[in-house]
Amino acid sequence: MKIVVDAMGGDHAPQSVVEGVVDAVKDYDLTVILVGPEQTIQKELARFTYPRDRIQIVHAPEVVGMKDPATASIRQKKNSSISVGIRLLKDRSCDAFVSAGNTGAVVAAATIRLGMLEGVERPAIGLVIPTLKKFAFLIDVGANTEAKPKHLFQSAFMARVYTREVLGVQNPEVGLLNIGEESSKGGGFAKEAYKCMEGTVPNFIGNVEANEIFTGKSDCIICNGFVGNVVIKVSQGLMESAAALMKREIKKSFWAMLGAWIMKSRLKHIQKLADYSEYGGAPLLGVNGVVMISHGRSGPRAIKNAIRAAVREVDHHILDVMIKEIGGHE
Amino acid sequence: MKIVVDAMGGDHAPQSVVEGVVDAVKDYDLTVILVGPEQTIQKELARFTYPRDRIQIVHAPEVVGMKDPATASIRQKKNSSISVGIRLLKDRSCDAFVSAGNTGAVVAAATIRLGMLEGVERPAIGLVIPTLKKFAFLIDVGANTEAKPKHLFQSAFMARVYTREVLGVQNPEVGLLNIGEESSKGGGFAKEAYKCMEGTVPNFIGNVEANEIFTGKSDCIICNGFVGNVVIKVSQGLMESAAALMKREIKKSFWAMLGAWIMKSRLKHIQKLADYSEYGGAPLLGVNGVVMISHGRSGPRAIKNAIRAAVREVDHHILDVMIKEIGGHE
Repeated sequence: MKIVVDAMGGDHAPQSVVEGVVDAVKDYDLTVILVGPEQTIQKELARFTYPRDRIQIVHAPEVVGMKDPATASIRQKKNSSISVGIRLLKDRSCDAFVSAGNTGAVVAAATIRLGMLEGVERPAIGLVIPTLKKFAFLIDVGANTEAKPKHLFQSAFMARVYTREVLGVQNPEVGLLNIGEESSKGGGFAKEAYKCMEGTVPNFIGNVEANEIFTGKSDCIICNGFVGNVVIKVSQGLMESAAALMKREIKKSFWAMLGAWIMKSRLKHIQKLADYSEYGGAPLLGVNGVVMISHGRSGPRAIKNAIRAAVREVDHHILDVMIKEIGGHE
Repeated sequence: MKIVVDAMGGDHAPQSVVEGVVDAVKDYDLTVILVGPEQTIQKELARFTYPRDRIQIVHAPEVVGMKDPATASIRQKKNSSISVGIRLLKDRSCDAFVSAGNTGAVVAAATIRLGMLEGVERPAIGLVIPTLKKFAFLIDVGANTEAKPKHLFQSAFMARVYTREVLGVQNPEVGLLNIGEESSKGGGFAKEAYKCMEGTVPNFIGNVEANEIFTGKSDCIICNGFVGNVVIKVSQGLMESAAALMKREIKKSFWAMLGAWIMKSRLKHIQKLADYSEYGGAPLLGVNGVVMISHGRSGPRAIKNAIRAAVREVDHHILDVMIKEIGGHE
């Protein structure tokens, strides 16, 4: 298997990306093509020992910045690591593309160059989030901010396939993110999405309220990209603010500092449970190719786990399975 | 000043409501009319000593349950505490209405019976949330789930008035909740709302991302009711799940238990900072009357603070100020 990895993607690129790739080729049976400026990548690779034949480099001199406008950067920078990587996927020189770079640019490049999967009209990004039970798969967290009810319906099928084949959940439950439990709740959009899913999406458990995301009420939670993006950013912001507030308060008292010091190892364990890098990247679903988006802050471990998730997608032929399961429900 | 309070509203009614009202009339210069089943209220009141002339009872035999369908319950239960309370406000027998009852029913009753404020087309519920700086005013958290961009524009003006007059923030900043910082971000809805606000809403600071809500980037944060409801429920759910997870983890280790015990008073202090009851209720803005919705879980302190916020609204004539400031911008 051959995975293309964007060497220039993310806040800690290329260092973290190259380190994660080296770890991946040591542990998994695969070849990685690193795309990016050749000399930069070679310099990074020189720091490591690894099976030489397992890492190749494809030169891509341009870099899309994390804040560059999505579509424009794809049109203008045809030799960026993202554009070249997606092109390699398109012409079947590899099986999957992994990037921790500009999410909007990856979505735009994948959608424009790879096209959509049969039966799917819009791309959607899924994200594995920790819950009190284990984890939930939230989709869409930002690819399609103007979703129609039928797009949520299609995402529901893709979410089931990903959760089952890649995350190993048997017969995953599907919930619709809404602001009330009853089917009559929410605006016209939510009601219509409910109607689309009821009776057609297997194991559909109805509406899930936002406060139930983290309790693990449903394996898959479906929403439009605007709402999903708000959910993950609120969560991230709240945890960071709560941690900052806690630090500030603890510093005010010697006893609190002592208590926190004693609790340290347990607190670290909790932090680890909430660590996105444990779960690998966020799959971009709906496009005609296996594309994995890793968090912009990805360290080597997150990159390695994103590669592992991409490998599982390929191994389980999830594109074919998705086409098959969506087929007839369009 | 006369405030009508729904004696039967909330999970702890009528006990908590009556206790909060007794505290309020002792501390503030006002008369409260308690609406609800007369005998039930009298029985509760008998537990307390208070200035007798400051609390009156208006009999309302019916009760709207917390899970009753909103509009139907208002149409069918014309003698519920909510319906009677709103009627007293409508015929100017009092200055404000406070309820910890069924939010949807209060919104429906207020909108149908009081009508809208001049220049405002839809109601919106605001909520004061704690931030690292002090607090932010998030609006709408669930009254209008099918908002149009101009409704957000109108909410922006109402939010400024409430934040200034009731919460005491001079020249409050207004931010639009969006999934990116640039004005080009978000779907068509967000872009149009941005355009409406830019140049017309005073002190408009542009887009605010969801992870910045709790850092205190903006005094007022404007969003549609679906998204706002998701924001508060995600926050609530995440804090509850994080606390449950922490408890579970701490119990696994003697040292962690000891550390937590030592930190206890500081942790309680943090909890208090995040306690909604500190900030009083959530104002229902846009209707032609002062209506305050208190959290369903309200204890006496939250009820008392909601009454205090309603008093400030009346004292500062915020309905007139809103009409004036929105005027000419419709």
